[in-house]
Amino acid sequence: MANPTAAILVIGDEILSGRTRDSNMHYLARELTRVGIDLQEARVVSDNRRAIIKAVKSLSAAYGSVFTSGGIGPTHDDITAECVAEAFDTPISIRDDARALLAAHYARTGAELNEARLRMARIPDGATLIENPVSVAPGFTIQNVHVMAGVPAVFEAMVASVLPTLTGGSPLLSQSLRIERGEGEIAGPLSKLADDFPELSIGSYPFQNNGIYGANIVIRGHDGAQVDAAMTRLSEMFA
Amino acid sequence: MANPTAAILVIGDEILSGRTRDSNMHYLARELTRVGIDLQEARVVSDNRRAIIKAVKSLSAAYGSVFTSGGIGPTHDDITAECVAEAFDTPISIRDDARALLAAHYARTGAELNEARLRMARIPDGATLIENPVSVAPGFTIQNVHVMAGVPAVFEAMVASVLPTLTGGSPLLSQSLRIERGEGEIAGPLSKLADDFPELSIGSYPFQNNGIYGANIVIRGHDGAQVDAAMTRLSEMFA
Repeated sequence: MANPTAAILVIGDEILSGRTRDSNMHYLARELTRVGIDLQEARVVSDNRRAIIKAVKSLSAAYGSVFTSGGIGPTHDDITAECVAEAFDTPISIRDDARALLAAHYARTGAELNEARLRMARIPDGATLIENPVSVAPGFTIQNVHVMAGVPAVFEAMVASVLPTLTGGSPLLSQSLRIERGEGEIAGPLSKLADDFPELSIGSYPFQNNGIYGANIVIRGHDGAQVDAAMTRLSEMFA
Repeated sequence: MANPTAAILVIGDEILSGRTRDSNMHYLARELTRVGIDLQEARVVSDNRRAIIKAVKSLSAAYGSVFTSGGIGPTHDDITAECVAEAFDTPISIRDDARALLAAHYARTGAELNEARLRMARIPDGATLIENPVSVAPGFTIQNVHVMAGVPAVFEAMVASVLPTLTGGSPLLSQSLRIERGEGEIAGPLSKLADDFPELSIGSYPFQNNGIYGANIVIRGHDGAQVDAAMTRLSEMFA
């Protein structure tokens, strides 16, 4: 059976302007690979209502689950929650359990739970909260979309809360071999190998470093015996 | 006048499996910001024919220009060129000028211009070559899509070849201020500021580090006087 599929939607002008380099995509990719969920697409859009709504609709229709990153804080540019609600045509309002979490947190720290902070308690109807052990303000899951913070420490903690609730598949196994020959030399045999093992994904990633060049060949698949067999063949080819 | 828009399409299983962390998106984001082209979307898809064709069609229809990264080498998993040709319903074949570049290169290095390497001379009809000063095999531009290599050194060199051919806009100017207060405290005044300067983008990026927390406020816009005025107001607010 094919593994479950997923996509990530990163929301934020700061990535697209080059001010910040995203790390959540890479983190999620590794975590999903570990539990056997195939991350099939990643998108980055800016803090723009229409762009966010369109992307949420299209990704949630196309993939088993969608993870969003960013835009759920207290400031005016945090519009992800309302956009996700609109994508699912669902009302959104301040929810008691989310407000209680924030109230307890700010009571502890002595800060005021003002109007801006209350924005972080707005949750679409029917959503489930995602725990935030770092800074309390929760994420939420609605249908197949998991809405999470952009700050990497919070994003990663939320991923840890969500992953156990998902059905994984067989983990993607991979083995790699470094071959110090030009890609053009190994491409022919490699293509034959790929034909012989149609269920495996065989990738070639060239490198060039201080005059040494070649490619890392990565063989990936869900069947360990097949990956082993293909790797044995590959090693023999270029022994 | 609004600035020209762009999108980037990164092609490669190795990014989505978490094996490699993409850097081309971040590089292009910085370069485009510098010349006043608004990068409005980034996508990553796997080495899958249908996914690539669909993304090329949709991005090239939605944005002024599209930059692709990855999948133009000599191996069986390099399918970007044929997918882009198919997206534009254009024939693709080995082109004489591209073949000549490769032939001269391999003659110099003493390697054979075999069938696999010749794949890198396949160019869709009507495309313009993009120079590759690093490893010779060219990229190409067809309509508004610039097809470039995934290896960062080559990608960056190709971006340098392409950018001067594009019409830029007014560069995006930005100033930022570090404010050591919780986002929830500054959100109200910040939102007012954003309302007063509707043509600027004002972003708030929280940080938390060794017990010190706050946010970097970034004000971006194309009119330097406006950015200055907003920054002055912001500094006064939190002096």
